[in-house]
Amino acid sequence: MKLATLKDGSRDGQLAVVSRDLKTAHLADGIALTMQRALDDWSFIAPQLEQLYEQLNEGKARRSFDFDPKRCMAPLPRAFQWADGSAYVNHVELVRKARNADMPESFWHDPLMYQGGSDDFIGPMDDIVLASEEWGIDFEGEIAVITDDVPMGSTPAQAASHIKLLMLVNDVSLRNLIPAELAKGFGFFQSKPASSFSPVAVTPDELGSSWQDGKVDLSLRTTWNGALVGQPNAGTDMVFSFPQLIAHLAKTRNARAGSIIGSGTVSNKDSAKGYTCIAEKRCLEMIANGEAKTPFMKFGDTIRIEMLDANGKSIFGAINQQLVQATAPKAR
Amino acid sequence: MKLATLKDGSRDGQLAVVSRDLKTAHLADGIALTMQRALDDWSFIAPQLEQLYEQLNEGKARRSFDFDPKRCMAPLPRAFQWADGSAYVNHVELVRKARNADMPESFWHDPLMYQGGSDDFIGPMDDIVLASEEWGIDFEGEIAVITDDVPMGSTPAQAASHIKLLMLVNDVSLRNLIPAELAKGFGFFQSKPASSFSPVAVTPDELGSSWQDGKVDLSLRTTWNGALVGQPNAGTDMVFSFPQLIAHLAKTRNARAGSIIGSGTVSNKDSAKGYTCIAEKRCLEMIANGEAKTPFMKFGDTIRIEMLDANGKSIFGAINQQLVQATAPKAR
Repeated sequence: MKLATLKDGSRDGQLAVVSRDLKTAHLADGIALTMQRALDDWSFIAPQLEQLYEQLNEGKARRSFDFDPKRCMAPLPRAFQWADGSAYVNHVELVRKARNADMPESFWHDPLMYQGGSDDFIGPMDDIVLASEEWGIDFEGEIAVITDDVPMGSTPAQAASHIKLLMLVNDVSLRNLIPAELAKGFGFFQSKPASSFSPVAVTPDELGSSWQDGKVDLSLRTTWNGALVGQPNAGTDMVFSFPQLIAHLAKTRNARAGSIIGSGTVSNKDSAKGYTCIAEKRCLEMIANGEAKTPFMKFGDTIRIEMLDANGKSIFGAINQQLVQATAPKAR
Repeated sequence: MKLATLKDGSRDGQLAVVSRDLKTAHLADGIALTMQRALDDWSFIAPQLEQLYEQLNEGKARRSFDFDPKRCMAPLPRAFQWADGSAYVNHVELVRKARNADMPESFWHDPLMYQGGSDDFIGPMDDIVLASEEWGIDFEGEIAVITDDVPMGSTPAQAASHIKLLMLVNDVSLRNLIPAELAKGFGFFQSKPASSFSPVAVTPDELGSSWQDGKVDLSLRTTWNGALVGQPNAGTDMVFSFPQLIAHLAKTRNARAGSIIGSGTVSNKDSAKGYTCIAEKRCLEMIANGEAKTPFMKFGDTIRIEMLDANGKSIFGAINQQLVQATAPKAR
């Protein structure tokens, strides 16, 4: 099933079921008003949403309307948890190599993960609004899952059963703020502004055999200013599966319904697959030529992130955004 | 005004107004069902809650009942943002000194802050449940504020107007997990399990003249296993005020209604004031004697964190918890 959250002027938007071909939608107002409410009581709510989804796909839903991704908020416009991993260790190794630093061997078996801000997510076609190009504005194409309640101490096998939905993410990053921030020892903070999500979140069964061992065996396509810059396979070189990332998160605490867990920037060792963040391209340039040539994003730039199935059909709809300059808040 | 969230079996609990003397309470069900809903529309909701609060204090509220902190969840049982600062730089300097490391001079003017998990907060009298004493379980007594919507780029002066409520926090920390986690460069994650909050959240006016320049000029009292171990003044040695911490948070993003911002462990340079986390005591021992003697918490330990006004009356009620051992989640 495919679900979206539509803008209605409220903070949490309105839950809608979207047809498999992303052409029509139907409000879920008789079932659950918001995505969070559906996740809070998933085992009771999901079957009702599935029934509506089947009717919609068969053209039998009574109040269906054209699906317009411009009307979408993030599937969870605000969430109680956003924990982002860095499961494509190849990416981490490249970043280190570019600055002549070794990567600890432990990074291959102990996941990197940081806690992100989750109070103000951006819709798939909404502008990315930031104050300064000097911050080194970058995109990061990722996959994320949403869970129901995951008890503390869950194993990866137990964690797997808690994955209810998948989405695409643009984890916007401010590269020039990262070095000073990491040097302080407290991790990413100002360097990770609001993230954007795909128009729809889908249940794992929508991926068919491409959902394997807690990984998504499909290419993630990133288009920057109209040029395809990357199409790495998200299942290849993902060192930690989503169940492993969730178990890492839940080692010392419960993760509650609506927790979003990200894969980190998708990256393949085969550099012919291109890049899903500019930083990686710059690292490759640094390693090859001693200097990074590709600049970070400029105001006016566009970024599109999408995943197609084996038949070339979009699964999640596209994240398709423009970067625009923020104005200072009004005096009050 | 003083507000609490009462257990009712739901994830977000039920909003209640609590009398100034913490003796009686009244459900806010005719005004706002939950704390988050009140914060989502604060300028409209708060005056109605204030009116009920006045009636309750005058003994004129019609359906009042005895206030029982055991029935309290955290004022926000789950939140969309929990960002914790480290504003008592003295504490940071001590930790560094104990391991013979210098503290960068920049720490005096650039706040340290990390993003914490906010999906599963603990009530003031609920057990702290963790799996292993080997993790080095510690308490951290802090003050926190809750904001309404703070636009990106707000100045400290602008941020000040967005502080709507204050609470006490026990920011439970797993000291033995911290060194390896910080060495990975991504900041705290597993080392910061669920935090606990005071029974009530109060509006700044409840602090009277003790709320000065965005700091709380009162002692925070920490009692460990029945012994008072610390009573530092929270206004003394707080290098960054709450408005400064909020402005730091909002530099590259909006902070939305219900954002919780913590002060970090309260700590005075005058060590006669005692400690609000065991780590600080251990650092002082290390500096004085070359070894830390005070052990971290054991299962069965109790921890009480409270703040009294000039007349010796509790402002927020007490965080009063026991540490108990977790059992592994059931197979499923």
